[in-house]
Amino acid sequence: MINGAIPAGLLSAVRSERPLVHHITNSVTINDCANITICTGAAPVMAEAPEEVAGMVGAAGALVLNIGTLSATQVEAMLIAGRRANELGIPVVLDPVGVGATRFRTETAHRLLDALAIAVVKGNAGEIGVLAGTGGSVRGVDSGGIMGDPVETARECARSTGTVVSMTGAVDVVTDGSRIYLVGNGNPMMDRLSGTGCMASSVTAAFAAVADDFAVASAAALAAFGLAGERAACGARGPYSFRTALFDELAGLAPDDLAREARIEER
Amino acid sequence: MINGAIPAGLLSAVRSERPLVHHITNSVTINDCANITICTGAAPVMAEAPEEVAGMVGAAGALVLNIGTLSATQVEAMLIAGRRANELGIPVVLDPVGVGATRFRTETAHRLLDALAIAVVKGNAGEIGVLAGTGGSVRGVDSGGIMGDPVETARECARSTGTVVSMTGAVDVVTDGSRIYLVGNGNPMMDRLSGTGCMASSVTAAFAAVADDFAVASAAALAAFGLAGERAACGARGPYSFRTALFDELAGLAPDDLAREARIEER
Amino acid sequence: MINGAIPAGLLSAVRSERPLVHHITNSVTINDCANITICTGAAPVMAEAPEEVAGMVGAAGALVLNIGTLSATQVEAMLIAGRRANELGIPVVLDPVGVGATRFRTETAHRLLDALAIAVVKGNAGEIGVLAGTGGSVRGVDSGGIMGDPVETARECARSTGTVVSMTGAVDVVTDGSRIYLVGNGNPMMDRLSGTGCMASSVTAAFAAVADDFAVASAAALAAFGLAGERAACGARGPYSFRTALFDELAGLAPDDLAREARIEER
Repeated sequence: MINGAIPAGLLSAVRSERPLVHHITNSVTINDCANITICTGAAPVMAEAPEEVAGMVGAAGALVLNIGTLSATQVEAMLIAGRRANELGIPVVLDPVGVGATRFRTETAHRLLDALAIAVVKGNAGEIGVLAGTGGSVRGVDSGGIMGDPVETARECARSTGTVVSMTGAVDVVTDGSRIYLVGNGNPMMDRLSGTGCMASSVTAAFAAVADDFAVASAAALAAFGLAGERAACGARGPYSFRTALFDELAGLAPDDLAREARIEER
Repeated sequence: MINGAIPAGLLSAVRSERPLVHHITNSVTINDCANITICTGAAPVMAEAPEEVAGMVGAAGALVLNIGTLSATQVEAMLIAGRRANELGIPVVLDPVGVGATRFRTETAHRLLDALAIAVVKGNAGEIGVLAGTGGSVRGVDSGGIMGDPVETARECARSTGTVVSMTGAVDVVTDGSRIYLVGNGNPMMDRLSGTGCMASSVTAAFAAVADDFAVASAAALAAFGLAGERAACGARGPYSFRTALFDELAGLAPDDLAREARIEER
Repeated sequence: MINGAIPAGLLSAVRSERPLVHHITNSVTINDCANITICTGAAPVMAEAPEEVAGMVGAAGALVLNIGTLSATQVEAMLIAGRRANELGIPVVLDPVGVGATRFRTETAHRLLDALAIAVVKGNAGEIGVLAGTGGSVRGVDSGGIMGDPVETARECARSTGTVVSMTGAVDVVTDGSRIYLVGNGNPMMDRLSGTGCMASSVTAAFAAVADDFAVASAAALAAFGLAGERAACGARGPYSFRTALFDELAGLAPDDLAREARIEER
C-alpha cells in the first residue's frame, strides 16, 4: 500500500488551491462534472466555443477533454484548447468515452492523442483496450470487456500513447508504462449510474492540477472518489439516492479519512 | 385488465437482454433520460453527430428521437439515424416535444413521420391532438388540452400517422388505431417535474427493444414507470425528493410487483 | 424592511398565472433552470434554434438570456429572441455568466446590452463589476471580487446599462440606479453548488413576468429563492442533499411564509 499521506496531501492541496478545471465535455453528464468538481474542492468551468477556449484554458489548472457527445465543432475546440494548455504546461485529461463504438470516436481519440500532449487517459477497460490496440470492445459507452490481462492492457496503452493510463474497473489500474498502481476503493453501485466515469475524469483533473506526478495524482483521485462511493453506498435506497450521497460524501471527505482508507497498492 | 404477466415478462426481458437505447434528444433532460434508461434495466447511449449516428444506431435495440431542443443539425442526424434504424428493423420512438408551439417543431415532426417508419409516437394530449389534426394546443412544452375525446384523438393520430400512439395523461391512452389500452398507473407528482415525459419515452424504447408488439410494449412501459411514480410519491417531501425516489423505485421494481400492480385495461 | 406582502403577492401571482419562461441558456444547468422554474410556479421552455426562438418567445411571459456556455449560433438566437421580446414588451433577464473571463463573453454581453432593452441584469459581484467598468474580476464563472463598494458598483452598472441590476452575494444588492434594495435571505450552502446563480435568474424571470416594477420583482425573487435556501440548509448532509431540499423548499414555499420571512431592506 502506498502511504495514505500522499493522496491526503493532494486532496488538501486541491481544497486550499481550488484550481480551475476547464471542461470540454458531453451534454449528458456536464452538470454532474461541474458539481463533482466543486465537491472535490476545485472550481469547474465549461466552455467550448472555438472563440473562447484558448482564453479560458489560460486561467485553468487542468483541462478535461471528454468525447461523450462529440461534434465536429467540439473537436476543433478541443484541439485549440489542448494546444494552448500544452503551451502553458497545463495538464490535459482525456476521457475517450465510447471510443471503439463508432469510427468518429475512434478517429477523434487518436487525433487528439497525436496532436496533443495528453497527461492522463482515463477510460473503462474496453476503451483502454481499443486505444491499446490489444483488443477491447465497447457497446455504446459501456465497456464490453478486453482480451487478456487488464494490467498488461493498461501498460500497453500507456506505452503506445505516452500518457498515464487510468483504467477504471472493480480494481482500477493506473500506470505510466512502468509503475503500476492498483486502486481498491469503490463500490459496484457506481456502475448503476450514468456519469461516474465522467466524474472520475473531473476528479482526476482536479488532482492533476496540484500534482507533478500524474500517475500518483490519478490513483489518488480514484481512491478519493471510490471512497466517497463506498460511504455513499451505506444506506442508499437505490441508484439515485446513492448519487445524492456520492456528491455529499466526496464534499465531506476529510484528508485524514483518505489517508486512513485509501487502498492504493503499488505492484 | 390485461394479464400482469405480460408487462412483467417485458420488464424481465429488458433486465436480462439489457438493450442499448440510442437517444438523439434535448439538452434539458438528457441526463434524466440516461439514468432512467439504466434504472429500467437497459443501457443508454447519446450521440447526435451526423458523422456517427448511423454507426451508433447499428448496435442499438431502439432509437429515441426527441425534439425538445431542436436544431437543424439535429434534424439531419435524426433522419440519418432513423433511416438506418428502419433498414435494420430497429424500432424508433418519436417524442414530439412542443409540437404545435412553433412552426419549426410542427414541420420537423411531420417531416420525421413522413421520412421514417416510426414505431411509437409518445406525447402529451396537446401534442397528440396537434399531430392528429383534430385540435390540440401546446404552450411551450406543456399540453394546453385538446378538442374532443382523448381516445378518439389518440386513435385518429395512430391512423393518420400509421404508428402506435402513446398519449400520457391522468389515464394514459395507447393505441395502434384499432386496439386501445388505458393505463391507470401514475401519480400527479410526475407533472411537477421537468423531464417525466422524456423519461417515459426512454422507458418505452427500452421495452420496445425487447418486444414485437409495440402497443403492448408502450402500455407496459407506462405501467412500470407510473407504478414507480406511485411508489415514489409515498414519503416525498416535494418534487425533487420525489424525483430521487422515482429513479430508485424504477430501479428496484421487481417484475412480480409489476405483474400484481400494473393497471392496463383493454377497451 | 419593505412590507412582506409585496414579495408574497408576486409569488402568489406567479402561482396563479403560471407564466411561460423562455430560456436560451447554458448546457450545464439547463435542467436545474427548468426544474426551479416549475418549483417557483411558472412553466419553463428551452429553445435556441434561430428558426424557432421568435415564435417561442411570443407565448412567453419572460425571456432569460444566459451566456454560460456561449456559441456563435446561440448569440444569433439571443438577438432574434430578444428583439421579438422587446417588440412584444416581454421582460428580458440577462445572466452574464463568466463575463470578463474571456473576450468572447465580454463582447457578447455588451453586444446584447447594446442591441436589446434588457429589464434585469443578474450577476455575481465580479460580473457586475466588469459590466460597470469599475473593476471586477471573474475566474471561470466565479466572482473574483470587485474594487470598491458593492452598492456603488451595482448602481454604476445600472446607470451605465440602463437596466435593473441584481447582484448576488452574502447580501444581494438590487438597484435601478436610484432605488436600492438589500436582500438578506440566503445561505452559504448555495455557493457550494453549480447552478444557483443560473437558477436565481430563472426565478427572477418568473417574478418579472407578473410584475411592472422589475427592481421589486428582482428583490422579491432573490428573497424567495434565498429563503428556500435557508430552509434547505436545515438538515442537509452535504451540498447535494441541500440541492434536493432547495427545490423541495421553493416548491413548498407559501406566500405567507415569504411575507413573514423576506428580508428586503430599502436603503
